[in-house]
This record gives sequence, C-alpha cells and structure tokens, in this order.
Amino acid sequence: MSYLEELKQALAADRVTTNSAVLDQHSRDESYHTPARPDAVVFPLSSEEVSRVMKIAGKHEIPIVPFGLGTSLEGHVIPYAGGITMDFSLMDKVLEIKPEDFLVRVEPGVTRSKLNQELKKHGLFFSVDPGADATLGGMAATNASGTTSVRYGVMRDQVRDLEVVLANGEIIHTGNLAVKSSSGYNLNGLFVGSEGTLGAFTELTLQVYGIPEMTIAGRADFSSIDEAVSAVVAIQSAGIQVARIELVDAASIAQVNAYSHTSYPEVPTLFLEFHGNEAGLMQDVDFARDILSDNGCSNFKFEKDSLARAQLWDARHNLAYAAMRANPGKKMMVTDVCLPISQLAGGIHAAQEALRAEGLEGGILGHVGDGNYHALLMIDVENPEEMAKAEAFNRAIVEYALSKGGSCTGEHGVGIGKAKYQQLEHGNAYSVMQALKKTLDPQNLLNPGKLFYETGNSAAMQ
Amino acid sequence: MSYLEELKQALAADRVTTNSAVLDQHSRDESYHTPARPDAVVFPLSSEEVSRVMKIAGKHEIPIVPFGLGTSLEGHVIPYAGGITMDFSLMDKVLEIKPEDFLVRVEPGVTRSKLNQELKKHGLFFSVDPGADATLGGMAATNASGTTSVRYGVMRDQVRDLEVVLANGEIIHTGNLAVKSSSGYNLNGLFVGSEGTLGAFTELTLQVYGIPEMTIAGRADFSSIDEAVSAVVAIQSAGIQVARIELVDAASIAQVNAYSHTSYPEVPTLFLEFHGNEAGLMQDVDFARDILSDNGCSNFKFEKDSLARAQLWDARHNLAYAAMRANPGKKMMVTDVCLPISQLAGGIHAAQEALRAEGLEGGILGHVGDGNYHALLMIDVENPEEMAKAEAFNRAIVEYALSKGGSCTGEHGVGIGKAKYQQLEHGNAYSVMQALKKTLDPQNLLNPGKLFYETGNSAAMQ
Repeated sequence: MSYLEELKQALAADRVTTNSAVLDQHSRDESYHTPARPDAVVFPLSSEEVSRVMKIAGKHEIPIVPFGLGTSLEGHVIPYAGGITMDFSLMDKVLEIKPEDFLVRVEPGVTRSKLNQELKKHGLFFSVDPGADATLGGMAATNASGTTSVRYGVMRDQVRDLEVVLANGEIIHTGNLAVKSSSGYNLNGLFVGSEGTLGAFTELTLQVYGIPEMTIAGRADFSSIDEAVSAVVAIQSAGIQVARIELVDAASIAQVNAYSHTSYPEVPTLFLEFHGNEAGLMQDVDFARDILSDNGCSNFKFEKDSLARAQLWDARHNLAYAAMRANPGKKMMVTDVCLPISQLAGGIHAAQEALRAEGLEGGILGHVGDGNYHALLMIDVENPEEMAKAEAFNRAIVEYALSKGGSCTGEHGVGIGKAKYQQLEHGNAYSVMQALKKTLDPQNLLNPGKLFYETGNSAAMQ
Repeated sequence: MSYLEELKQALAADRVTTNSAVLDQHSRDESYHTPARPDAVVFPLSSEEVSRVMKIAGKHEIPIVPFGLGTSLEGHVIPYAGGITMDFSLMDKVLEIKPEDFLVRVEPGVTRSKLNQELKKHGLFFSVDPGADATLGGMAATNASGTTSVRYGVMRDQVRDLEVVLANGEIIHTGNLAVKSSSGYNLNGLFVGSEGTLGAFTELTLQVYGIPEMTIAGRADFSSIDEAVSAVVAIQSAGIQVARIELVDAASIAQVNAYSHTSYPEVPTLFLEFHGNEAGLMQDVDFARDILSDNGCSNFKFEKDSLARAQLWDARHNLAYAAMRANPGKKMMVTDVCLPISQLAGGIHAAQEALRAEGLEGGILGHVGDGNYHALLMIDVENPEEMAKAEAFNRAIVEYALSKGGSCTGEHGVGIGKAKYQQLEHGNAYSVMQALKKTLDPQNLLNPGKLFYETGNSAAMQ
C-alpha cells in the first residue's frame, strides 16, 4: 500500500490531498525564499491522527513539515525535501480558559487574534504580538516575539506545557500547569523554537495576563536614529517599565502614511506604550517625556484613547504590508538580528552603511527595547545581482551582530535563511544541537534542512 | 598512572585532595539525605582545568559531581557513586558588570550575596533569592528561585549564557548577550536545572535589574491559612504586581520569634513586598490593603524603612535555621511542591491532613504567589519509623500536586530525593530526558544517580 493510501485510511480520504492548488498554497511563506511544493497535504484533527501520520512517514521515510498559516519569514514551512505537509488549520479550538490560573489551553491552529477575542470576555489577553496573525503553534515553533516582549517576554516565556508528537509517533507533555518547576530537564524550552524539527505540537498551555487597568500609547519624533536609540537606553536605565518601544525610520513612516492614510511626520519615530495603574502610569509617562526631550525628541504625543492607540499600532503593524503594496512584483526580505542594547546604535549604523555599500534601499525598524532591529528590503528575486547584494547585506549585519555578542535572529527564527550562520553563531554548541536532533529524529524526517545547514538546502534559495 | 596522579598533573598537586576532613565536607548537603564521601576533591581554577578533569574522568570512568557550597536540599551534591567532587570555590570572581546591558558575567563559585554587594555600586541587583547564600553555579544547576520569583522569574529566566564543560571535555556556550534569540535550540534552558548531569558550568552571564525607585514591605495577619491564600489569589487577579508574597504558618512564626527575637503574632501570616515608582506603589499598596482586609486580614503593617524591611525578610529567611536550632540532632526535610494557584489552598489542606495522618509536626510556608509551598519537617534520620512516615507524607503531597497538574518540585530540584517521582510526573517525556542524558553523557559519569531513578540510588536514603 502506498503511503498516501495509508494516510487516507489513518485519517479520512478528504483530509489527505494532492490537489495542485492546495500543494501550491503550502509551497511558500511570506518571505523571499523560493517556493517548493509538498507531495501531499494532510489535515489532522487530533494528536492521535498526528501520531498515525508520523508513524506512516517513518515507515516510508517521508519528510514531514508542520504548517500553521504560512506567515513565517525564513522559509520554515517550505518543504524543500517534498513529502507531507501537516496543516493544522482544522485543529483550531480554544479548549479551556482558566482565569484563576491565568492559563489557556489551545489547539495549535488557533490564531493569536482569535485567542484574544476569547480571552477578552474574561478580562485577559495573550501578550505575544509578532504583527502577523500567526497561529499559536507556529509562534511556539519559531519562539516568536514582537512589540510587547520588552515587557511580557517572548513566546518561550508563555509556554507552560506542550503536547508534542515525536518522530516515532509517541505523544509527550513537556511541562505542567504550575508557575514554576525544577523537575527534570526543561523540555518546554527545548521544543519551543525547534521549528518543527523535533516534533509536532498538538496542544499548547499558555500563560495569559489581566488586561491592564490603564494603557497609554504615544509617538515621539526625532531628527536622528541615534537620538531615538539613546532615548530608549535612557528610559530603560531609568527603570521605567515600557510595554512596547518601537523604532520606525523616516522611509518606513513615509510608507505607513501612504498605506494607512496617516500623516505622521516623516522622521525617525519611537512608538511607545505603557501598561499599569493610573497613578504609576502618569508618573512613568511624565518621567519618560522628560527623558525623550533630553534625548532630542522634538515632538511627542501620548494617546489614552483606545481608538487613537489602535490606529497607532495598526500603522506600525501594517508596515510590512505597506512595503509590499509599494513594491508590486517584489518579495520581502526582513532581516532580523538582535544585539546587546549597548551595541544597538552601532548595529543600526552598520546596517545603514551596508545598505549604502550594496546600493540597496531598505527601511529600518524594530523592537529596540530588546536590541532587536529589522531592515525591510523589497527585492526582485528573479534578479541574481539584486539577490546577491541582499545576501551580502544580510551576511554583513549578521556578522556584525555576532561579533558584538548578539544573535543572527531575535525572533524570526532560523528556517532556511539563517541555517548557514548557525555554526558561526553557536561554535561547539552547534554539534550539541545536531546530536539532540539526531537523538529525537534519527531518520531526519521532521522539517529536514531547516535550522541545520545541509548540503541539500544550500541549493535552495537562502 | 592512576587517575589521581593524572589529576595532580593536570591541575596542581595542592588542588587535588583525598584528605579525610575535606572528603567529609563534601559528603553532605543541608538536607536529611544520607551522607556519602567522594574519593577525591579537586579545586579547578579555569574551564580548561575543568575540561582536563572531565577527560581524565572519562578515560578512567570515574564519576564527577560539581559542588558549589553544599546548600542543596535534595542530596544533589552527595556523591553516592564515589569518584571526584569538583569544588568551584576557587572560581569565585565577578568577571564583568555591564550596567547598560543589565548583565553580569561571573564564575560559578560566586555567591548571590557577594554578587549583590558588587552590583549595589552600580544601582543594580540580582533578583533570585532562595534564602541560602548559595553559589550562582549551584543556583543555575537546580534552577533555583525563591521569594522574588513571583515578580522577576526564576534562575532560568536570568541566564543569558552559560559556559559549560561537557562530559567529553568540550567547552560550549549555550547562549549569547542579546535579550532574546530564536537561533537554534534553547540550550540555556536545557542546561539550567540539569543538576550537573549534563555538564559543569564554568561561567554564567546573568540578567540583573535596576534597584527599584521604592520598596515597601509588609506583614498581614490572618486567622486561617485559607484566608491568607484567598488574599493572594485576589491580589494577583486584581493585577497588582507584587515583588514577594510569602506565607508562613503559625507554628513557623513561633519558631521565628524564638530564633530572631521578634514578637510577631503567632498566626498565619503573609509577608509582602512591592517594588516600583512612588505613585504607582502607593496606589498598589492601598488596593492591596483593601483586598487583604476583604479576605479576613486582621492586622497589617507596611514598612517603607529599609531596616524594618530587612528585619522582616531576615526573619523569613532564617526560618530553616530556626527550625534546625529548635531541633538539635534532627535533620531537615523541606518538601517542595508546586501547584496551579487555583489548587494551592487544596494542596496545603492536603498537606496538613497528611501531616496529621502520619502523626508528624511540620511548619507550612512558601512562595504562594507561584503556587509553591513547603512543609518543613525536622526528622530523626536514625529512626526508621519516623523516616517512613516522612517519606509517606512526602509521597502523599507529591501525588496530590501531580494529580492537579502541578510539579513534584517547584524550586529545590530533583537530586536524589525526587528521582523516584520523575516517571510519574513526566510520563513518556521521561524517556526523552533519558535519551538526552545518554546523548550528552554516554558513560553516565556526570552526577550519576541524580535526577534519574536508578536501582543504584534506591539503596541510598531518599
């Protein structure tokens, strides 16, 4: 019996497909990486079904790629080795909300916006906000973060337990419901960020937060990126707890204005948000205002009103879509490096230098409170010269970040795009990672060619 | 050449000893677990020396136990299999403080109080406070936490990078200096809490915090533990950010009074602390006062004064020593389970029930904001009947915690004492942990018999 026949018996015939349009939908993510189609797509309904798929794949040595919504930015879900793509869109239930424990249990296909809709009824919210309306399974797989991580932490910090189906079809739980534990090895942390290379997540228990008593957002204009970054460092050194602190450069503000019909001054801008009780917030905001002003902020505007706040963050979040709209036919390369805060200004300068050196145009933006910045380039992937320049730029900023004790990716993950920097970043620890992979996936069937650099994946566009 | 001769050549003759008194010092921790002597103790000065020791141990198949100060509570550092104890007391330097990045780089033998002395000059502090003045290497090995974790997180949350010497003598770095990273597997998280079973830590880069603008501590008296726990849940549900929230039962307050010459009312008591800016704090404290009162608090007293605050926390921290003083000749068993907050009151009731059922006396205390409580029993380890009762009590509360989605240890770690509950707690994930251990320590020489249950360690007192 072929593996497809076995899959159809193990699931249901209508949830195993080789339909060309469906294969196409699962051939790409939101990045510039070259598409590649899987041989089949399955839509499991339960961990038991996922386990059956794993066993069939193991028996026939077929690669498996878990798939959420395809919003990844480094080609994580592109099945370069073919095989089965496991689409979790039918496992999209919020299973349980436990307000007293600030916990929620969800299936991996739930998106963060759907979760937040459900949580709102209980006065709760889920903090991780990577911009895209990704699935929670995908966000756990890449250790996503985003605008609010400076205050609430990254995806790994929110995961209390994962149900994981291993390569051999075994089902495990990586954690428990307690706030903390010193019992056994930290499997939660190991599986979060493993990008589908160690197992497929079939259930997540996540920490959530009470909606803060008060939220104030604001926009601060600067005449240079340097001043804006100094202001961020000064605010953090003063111990002011910001909930978000985002840098957007002048070029990107121009694209935001064009796309979102806003009229923000087209200068380097910080978008800020503060969460807390009213008295504490007002003191923090006053203090922050002084610090911003001391660091060259020419104009700042704080918004308590929820509509004005929403407009502000929509503008920030639509940046990638604005860039895509402005560059039809091109594809997006969003670089993503993270530096110690003290090295951030230098890192951004180096990025601007590298852009000039390659003759490229790109917007600089990022989660500067975490030392994480992006350069957003729209590139013509059919133009080998432009691709080579973009790759050279990418390598330059990664090497700069690593030389300063940073990381080649703060939040987008490794996927195919950053696999080639793993040895450089991790040194001897890279062999430890390879050994762990081999232990848990001895046939190398789980998202092969991702996270680790293989001769096979060097052929693919990286 | 014997392995001792090789060690003397690899280090220096005076840093390799088989002196009986030194072996005795390394035969025990602060717990009730039966002592056992190593065959030799070495005092390395550098990661290179640690690497040499590892290679010699591997060649001769000699077990190795890393040792900080011996403050562990589950027998972690007791070398039941003999071999080499690697004492890190000579690697006790604070190597670098980076105030702008809120980072510090230390050797593993630095104690948390020594670190805090150094940090104070920079307006910074290290948050994890397990009570004992443990070494930072030991605290990372057990994923220690303590009174402040409810606000700042546990040891794992503070570790940005570890330098680790693996069983084969290879030296790796598990992380970097950036605030966040999605690059490769999360080795930081895996090695923190690995209790010396995967490698020896030779350097730690840790996150530190700015000393808050203002700190207010307080004491709230209740007539029942139930009311005190309800108050904790209510304070957290209200979104008030407490920096510490500790429960101490009436019996323990009596021991505190006797030991610390205080005169606290001998009733169930919450010790609280709040960190923040003045305006925010005053609003939080007022709100907390109302909630405490609504939940049956009969008397509360807040202290802004640093001396009064220090006295309060000294009293809390001296609890274990108070119990030891009050029970000469006995040894301390501090149970340590963690529950989802919603299950905490039930868990404490079950513990009180189990104490009564076994006819034992014990104080109940704990980090209730994390759902983590301890029962502190002083036991006569020479009395088999008393030991059996204590073990039965321990098993009862662990099983209760696990049945409610909790963990068999919130902060003390597994060591020898909780090894027998690992299979029950982790199910199929336990075999994953065993596979990881085998991958990184194929000869099972690194702290053998700890964290994993082995026939060999069942003979030792657990």
